[in-house]
Amino acid sequence: MTTAEIAEHLNGSLIGDGSVMVERIAALESAGPGDIAYVDNPKFFAVATASSAACLLVPDSFESVSTSSALIKVKQAKLAFAQIAKLLHPPIAREPAIHDTAVIAGTADIALSAYIGPQATVGEYAHIGNNCRIEAGVVLGANVTVGDDCVLHPNVVLYDGVSIGSRVILHAGVCIGADGFGYVRDDMGYHKFPQIGTVEIEDDVEIGAHTCVDRAALGKTRIGRGTKLDNMVHVGHNCDIGERVVIAAQTGISGSVVIEDDAVIGGQVGFGDHTRVQKGAIIGSKAGILPGKIVRPGVWWGIPIQPLDEYKRMNAHLGRLPQMRDDLKELKARVKELEEKLR
Amino acid sequence: MTTAEIAEHLNGSLIGDGSVMVERIAALESAGPGDIAYVDNPKFFAVATASSAACLLVPDSFESVSTSSALIKVKQAKLAFAQIAKLLHPPIAREPAIHDTAVIAGTADIALSAYIGPQATVGEYAHIGNNCRIEAGVVLGANVTVGDDCVLHPNVVLYDGVSIGSRVILHAGVCIGADGFGYVRDDMGYHKFPQIGTVEIEDDVEIGAHTCVDRAALGKTRIGRGTKLDNMVHVGHNCDIGERVVIAAQTGISGSVVIEDDAVIGGQVGFGDHTRVQKGAIIGSKAGILPGKIVRPGVWWGIPIQPLDEYKRMNAHLGRLPQMRDDLKELKARVKELEEKLR
Amino acid sequence: MTTAEIAEHLNGSLIGDGSVMVERIAALESAGPGDIAYVDNPKFFAVATASSAACLLVPDSFESVSTSSALIKVKQAKLAFAQIAKLLHPPIAREPAIHDTAVIAGTADIALSAYIGPQATVGEYAHIGNNCRIEAGVVLGANVTVGDDCVLHPNVVLYDGVSIGSRVILHAGVCIGADGFGYVRDDMGYHKFPQIGTVEIEDDVEIGAHTCVDRAALGKTRIGRGTKLDNMVHVGHNCDIGERVVIAAQTGISGSVVIEDDAVIGGQVGFGDHTRVQKGAIIGSKAGILPGKIVRPGVWWGIPIQPLDEYKRMNAHLGRLPQMRDDLKELKARVKELEEKLR
Repeated sequence: MTTAEIAEHLNGSLIGDGSVMVERIAALESAGPGDIAYVDNPKFFAVATASSAACLLVPDSFESVSTSSALIKVKQAKLAFAQIAKLLHPPIAREPAIHDTAVIAGTADIALSAYIGPQATVGEYAHIGNNCRIEAGVVLGANVTVGDDCVLHPNVVLYDGVSIGSRVILHAGVCIGADGFGYVRDDMGYHKFPQIGTVEIEDDVEIGAHTCVDRAALGKTRIGRGTKLDNMVHVGHNCDIGERVVIAAQTGISGSVVIEDDAVIGGQVGFGDHTRVQKGAIIGSKAGILPGKIVRPGVWWGIPIQPLDEYKRMNAHLGRLPQMRDDLKELKARVKELEEKLR
Repeated sequence: MTTAEIAEHLNGSLIGDGSVMVERIAALESAGPGDIAYVDNPKFFAVATASSAACLLVPDSFESVSTSSALIKVKQAKLAFAQIAKLLHPPIAREPAIHDTAVIAGTADIALSAYIGPQATVGEYAHIGNNCRIEAGVVLGANVTVGDDCVLHPNVVLYDGVSIGSRVILHAGVCIGADGFGYVRDDMGYHKFPQIGTVEIEDDVEIGAHTCVDRAALGKTRIGRGTKLDNMVHVGHNCDIGERVVIAAQTGISGSVVIEDDAVIGGQVGFGDHTRVQKGAIIGSKAGILPGKIVRPGVWWGIPIQPLDEYKRMNAHLGRLPQMRDDLKELKARVKELEEKLR
Repeated sequence: MTTAEIAEHLNGSLIGDGSVMVERIAALESAGPGDIAYVDNPKFFAVATASSAACLLVPDSFESVSTSSALIKVKQAKLAFAQIAKLLHPPIAREPAIHDTAVIAGTADIALSAYIGPQATVGEYAHIGNNCRIEAGVVLGANVTVGDDCVLHPNVVLYDGVSIGSRVILHAGVCIGADGFGYVRDDMGYHKFPQIGTVEIEDDVEIGAHTCVDRAALGKTRIGRGTKLDNMVHVGHNCDIGERVVIAAQTGISGSVVIEDDAVIGGQVGFGDHTRVQKGAIIGSKAGILPGKIVRPGVWWGIPIQPLDEYKRMNAHLGRLPQMRDDLKELKARVKELEEKLR
């Protein structure tokens, strides 16, 4: 693509030569001829000015003094970079085909434009939509539904009855629909509580490698539209995760937790069952939430979680403990002295 | 099933029409005609009374005033519900068969009543018992033993020599018998310590998706009868987990840990090596246990763990820190005043 | 092997009968005829003296009084034990072969001495070196490179373009090269930031079951030579992990973290992005590191991490809180009394 074409595609204003060819994206610090990079942090404007990138995506505030790179001014440079990356580096396309070694149930309904890779297994009455890429070793149970334009990376497992929207990306080893962790105890030990619900993953969800989303005991576990889960996240039975939620790696969510739209959740967070996270709350990494807690909007931190401000205040108090101890000691001595004077 | 048949099966006392047909289980709040639900918490008795469920499982304390549902009084309503669920929703049965695409070693010994799914691999001298369901993509190493009535969900891996009891359920991606994490360091770096022991999983164990149980260095790692592990639990080499132990998701157990019978362990707990948890101890989620610690019966909490009472007391002290600081400040002023009076 | 052969192989000095046959390694407490064990801790010298092992590896400080075992004195008994274990229990060898059910791309380049197991998939232009063992269900993407003498256990997934050195061991389910967790947010929701970099795993690395190493957004994620990762570790995009680093189970490493050579990191640790761990630092289990932190050499602990000494000091202060509170109360009473005297 030429710099002019890129500027037009992004609806940005080009400063410099519109005929320069751009072949690939690159990081600002290593970009050279043929590369496009972006800068949005004024801290790095000097680096950008010195860059030999073919083209730079820059914000309006960037002073377009003498650079060897063509500049394209855009509203959100990082977003523009992501958009151009998609064009310059389209995801691998697979020819529509079902690999000879894939095992497809007779009643499965697979779009003609879909790709089913080697050693994949598709169960009875499964439905796979247009342009899906089902990679090697994926196992889809009976009555599974996969929408259009999905990518299921190798060794993903969808249990029977699970439903996936369109444009969903599941990374390697993702497991959707295993039984929730529920038992009834008596004198003999633990008896399995029924786990006969299902899981629904809505459109535009991306789920990281090895993340597990359990089926509901009754009803359904839900991951809302546009939500992104990182690697090795655990989502328990009957959870309801809203839209555009972001959850970082290794976070664990117990049963029947509700996370409302637009929440942002760090890594290694742990949720007790039946907690509710309200719209737009932000929870820091490694936080712990007690069962039944309602997490209101704002920034939360710690084990158990508290508002970040309170956490900081408490930490400041802790930091003053040695001083307090010294003060207390000194005060004791002074009081003793006073007491002796008055004896 | 009719309500009368259900009452008989549960040895409960039926109040109402014994000829009503029950087709499926349902949650109390959504149950309607054809559904059976349960209530055991008096908080929800009013909801139950208003339910249009075909049948309700209730405790003796439930007042059987006018309901449209048939009532069955039982000792443990939730347990009775689990028992009826098994009848109404039996797990999927597979016809005994070995799929064409499965790869079975010549010396493997597979019961005629077992099912081996597509793309599964069974190693030399493996033994698979009656009525087992080995799903797609499972890999069983050489000399593996699987008892009767087990379900191995897709992509489970059992390394060579691992042994599994009867009625064991392993969810998708479970990995049993990988090498423990043991090395000897010298100037050159790390040398692998031998990991030639094995793993024994006893009867009636259920293991959640992606949980990993490592083989012993020497000897064996053991998971006792009736124990239940949630998703993504890590069990290190040479651990000895007793009977009827429950461990929630993402808990990590270092090498040579002993957990005695009937312990209950939350999610995201971390165990240092060589710790011992005594019979019946309860450990809260996200707790951390230092190496070599002995955890006595009782409820434990925190990092590092302490008895829950002490943890609460310490937390109360922490909550009073701001007040203590104010008190200290005020006291200083008063002492100063006294000193000036006496100067 | 005879005891004399073992002594010679280890360059140790034999005390006792050189013709005794040794068949297998064993733990000190259970070793008997035909077994070799080791002792390096003086605490267990008495146990060793009473052992009926065929042969014992002992340090120079071991007093060779009357034992029924042949003794071999060596510099590092545990290391010697590991070396002998390798000879007595060599890893399973596979005959070089490509299993009939494996799917190999036409352009893949596989050494004649390599083994490719059942249901494995090898992508276009992949390269697999000498004596590699690629077990059942492994999926190698296009342009993957695997060096010599590697073992890839069942169901490992390497995404396109990933590169692995020689003598690398990847346990079951390991996933290398999934997309990093990066998005750009606008009013519509989250847009995928490009993840077009790669992963390089250097020689002599061992990676535990189900560990995930994400590809770089741009550039590469690196795991240095001789580094060992335990089970279910998460390594984010663009991380640079040095040589001879050890990381225990379930630790999570955010994007762009640098861990220098010879660091030792416990289990369930969490790293914020862009942190740097300096050469030789030791980080205790369950620690939490804030984004951008530089962790200097020394021992670190806690959430957020602090030097172990400071952590202990702070804990001691916390332990004295109840006493401080009592002191404060008493002091108040005494000051009040003084004030009344002076009124």
